[in-house]
Amino acid sequence: MFSITVRDHMMVAHSFRGDVFGPAQRLHGATFVVDATFRRPVLDDDGIVVDIGLATEQLGEVLSELTFRNLDEEPAFAGVNTSTEFLSRVVADRLADRLYAGALGEGARGIAAIAVTLHESHVAWASYERSL
Amino acid sequence: MFSITVRDHMMVAHSFRGDVFGPAQRLHGATFVVDATFRRPVLDDDGIVVDIGLATEQLGEVLSELTFRNLDEEPAFAGVNTSTEFLSRVVADRLADRLYAGALGEGARGIAAIAVTLHESHVAWASYERSL
Amino acid sequence: MFSITVRDHMMVAHSFRGDVFGPAQRLHGATFVVDATFRRPVLDDDGIVVDIGLATEQLGEVLSELTFRNLDEEPAFAGVNTSTEFLSRVVADRLADRLYAGALGEGARGIAAIAVTLHESHVAWASYERSL
Amino acid sequence: MFSITVRDHMMVAHSFRGDVFGPAQRLHGATFVVDATFRRPVLDDDGIVVDIGLATEQLGEVLSELTFRNLDEEPAFAGVNTSTEFLSRVVADRLADRLYAGALGEGARGIAAIAVTLHESHVAWASYERSL
Amino acid sequence: MFSITVRDHMMVAHSFRGDVFGPAQRLHGATFVVDATFRRPVLDDDGIVVDIGLATEQLGEVLSELTFRNLDEEPAFAGVNTSTEFLSRVVADRLADRLYAGALGEGARGIAAIAVTLHESHVAWASYERSL
Amino acid sequence: MFSITVRDHMMVAHSFRGDVFGPAQRLHGATFVVDATFRRPVLDDDGIVVDIGLATEQLGEVLSELTFRNLDEEPAFAGVNTSTEFLSRVVADRLADRLYAGALGEGARGIAAIAVTLHESHVAWASYERSL
Repeated sequence: MFSITVRDHMMVAHSFRGDVFGPAQRLHGATFVVDATFRRPVLDDDGIVVDIGLATEQLGEVLSELTFRNLDEEPAFAGVNTSTEFLSRVVADRLADRLYAGALGEGARGIAAIAVTLHESHVAWASYERSL
Repeated sequence: MFSITVRDHMMVAHSFRGDVFGPAQRLHGATFVVDATFRRPVLDDDGIVVDIGLATEQLGEVLSELTFRNLDEEPAFAGVNTSTEFLSRVVADRLADRLYAGALGEGARGIAAIAVTLHESHVAWASYERSL
Repeated sequence: MFSITVRDHMMVAHSFRGDVFGPAQRLHGATFVVDATFRRPVLDDDGIVVDIGLATEQLGEVLSELTFRNLDEEPAFAGVNTSTEFLSRVVADRLADRLYAGALGEGARGIAAIAVTLHESHVAWASYERSL
Repeated sequence: MFSITVRDHMMVAHSFRGDVFGPAQRLHGATFVVDATFRRPVLDDDGIVVDIGLATEQLGEVLSELTFRNLDEEPAFAGVNTSTEFLSRVVADRLADRLYAGALGEGARGIAAIAVTLHESHVAWASYERSL
Repeated sequence: MFSITVRDHMMVAHSFRGDVFGPAQRLHGATFVVDATFRRPVLDDDGIVVDIGLATEQLGEVLSELTFRNLDEEPAFAGVNTSTEFLSRVVADRLADRLYAGALGEGARGIAAIAVTLHESHVAWASYERSL
Repeated sequence: MFSITVRDHMMVAHSFRGDVFGPAQRLHGATFVVDATFRRPVLDDDGIVVDIGLATEQLGEVLSELTFRNLDEEPAFAGVNTSTEFLSRVVADRLADRLYAGALGEGARGIAAIAVTLHESHVAWASYERSL
C-alpha cells in the first residue's frame, strides 16, 4: 500500500461541554497542525498517489473554512463538542467530498482511504481514518 | 477508526544479554519518549475517544513505575532483555490493565486497541499494538 | 555560557486589533508550545544551571495562569495585542519575578538571562530574551 | 504486532515528466529522510524485532546506492518518475531482498512486513508498505 | 530582544567543487527547510516584530527564485559552492533587500537583525546572521 | 556570523548526588541527542564553515568515548554530577581539543566558537557555548 501525506495548520477558538473536560469547558483555543494522508494500492499513470501540490492546495481550502474562527459559533458544529478527534473526521470527510468532486484530479479516484491527524500540542494528537 | 495519542517520557538504565547487542551489553541508559495511542470505531457520549487529560495522567502513572530506575534490578524483568520493543508491550499491557480497571473512565470501555511507541533516539523507535 | 531549557504548552483564545492582522482580527485561538531557557556563565554548587524539575514546575505555574482562557477578557492584557512575541515577554517576565522571589531555588540567583520561545505552529514562533 | 523503525537520509537530484508536476519538471533535488519499519507478531529469541544496529547498517547500505546522485541518470529508473512514493517502494523492496539474503540476521526471517516512509520536507512525505 | 521566525522550504539540485566534499562533488540535491528570524529590541505600534503573514509571504518570494532549480546553472552562483551556509547568507541578504525596499511594511524598519537557518537533513543545518 | 550544526546521540547510565535531584539520585539513564555547532565570521576557501562530513565524524568519535557506559564509573567524572549542562561542556571541550589538533581540517582553524546542546527528552535540553 502506498500513501502520501501533506501538512498544514489552523488556529481556532472553542469550548467544550461536559465535566470530563475540566478547564477546557472555558473558551480557549488551539493550533491544530493537520496531516492529511491518502492511501492507494497502486500508483496512478504519473507514478504518484496524488499530486502533492494539489493535495496541499485542497487541504488548505478545507482548513480555510475553519481557521481564524470561534468554532462555538459555527452553525455546522451546533450542539457538538469540536474535540480534536471530531475535527479530524470533519477534515477527512471534507477532503473526501472534494476528491469525489474531482478537485484532486482524475487520477485521485483510485485513492482507497483518507486519514487525518490533528496535533493539538507537542504531547497530544488525534486521528480519523476512513475508506473511500 | 478514531484515535488519540498522548506523549510522556521515562529515563532508565539497563543492559542487554546476547552478542547481537555489541556495546549495548554494557550497562547504559535511555530516554524513552513514549506515545500511547487509543483507538475506537465510534466516539463516546462526550464526542471523544478518551479524555486526553485522563490518558496523560494514566500514562504518567505507568511510567512512574519504570522511570529513574535500573531495569536490570527490577524483579518484573528478571531474565529478559528490556529492549525498546519489549518495553513498548509492557507499557501497552499496563495501560490495558488500567483501562479494564476503569481508570480511564467508563466511556473508555469502548476502546478497541492500544498502541505504544517508544522513541529511544531521533533515529530509532519501536512499537507494540494490541486489541482489547 | 551554560543554559537549560524546559518545554510546556498553553491553549488560549484571543483576537487582534489592526488591519495588518487580516483574518486574525476575528476571535480565534492558538496552542503555544513554550520553551523557557535559563542562562548563566558558571554552574551552581550542584553542577547545574537550575533544577530541571523545578524549572518545569515553575513554568507550569506561569502557564496555568494563562491557559484555557480567552486572553481578550484578561484585565492584565486590556488594550494590547497578545501577539506571540508579546506573550513571550509576559512568560519571561513572570519567570523572572518567580526567580527573584526564590521559587527556582537559592542557586538560581546566579542565572544571568531568561529567554522564552512560543511556537504558534510548525511554521512560526517568537522569542523574547532579557537579562536578570 | 511489534515493530522497530530506524531513520537515515539521502540527498538526490531528479526531475519529473508530466504536466501535473509543474515546476518540478525542471531538474531539482530533495533530501529524503527515510524511516524503515520492520513488523512481526512475536519477538525473536533475543527479545527483539531485529537488531537496530543491523537494521541501521542495512538501511545505510541501501541508501548509499542512491544518495549523492542524479536519479535521472540511473539505469534502474529509466522511463519512470522517481516520485517520493515510488522511491519508498524501491527502498522497501531492496531491504526485503537483503532480509531474504540473510543480511538482517537469521532472527529477521520472522519479520512479516516492511514499511518505508520518505520525508521530502517538513510538510510532505510518502510511504510504501509490503508484506514478506 | 524580541524575534519572530517563519519556516518554508526549497528543493534544489547542485554539486560542489573541492576534494573535501567527497561524493557531494557529484550532481545531487537537497530539500532545505528554511527558518527566517527577524530581531528587534522593541515591538512596533501593533505590538509585533513584523507581521508573520507578511514575513511568510516574503520568505516564500525569496525561495521561489531558488526552488525547483539546478543551482549549478544559476548565473548568480557561477564559480561558487552553493553550500548550506552560503545559501543561508543568500536568503538573509535577499530578505534584507526586501525589508529595505519596504516589502515587510513600514513597521519592519525597526528590525535590527536577520538570521536564516537552512536545515539540509534531520542531522545537519547551517545559519547566517547579520545586522541591518 | 555563519554556523553549521551536526547531530548525533549517546545512551548512558548515571546517577546524581544532591537532594535537589529527587528520584534522579537513583541509577537511571538517558539518551542525549547531541547538536554540535561551529561558528565563524567568514567562510573558508571552500565556502564552508567546516566540512559537515568531518564534523559529523569527529562528533561521533567524541560520543563513542561516552556512549553505552555507566558514567558513574568513568574516572574522568569522579566526584561530579554528570548533569546535561556539564556533559554539554565535556563534548564542547573535547571537540575544541580535536579542532586544535587539526582533526577538523586546516580550514577549521578559523572557527571562532563551539556550542553544544544535549537534548535529554522532548521537553528538556541544555547547552554550553565557548569561544576558541
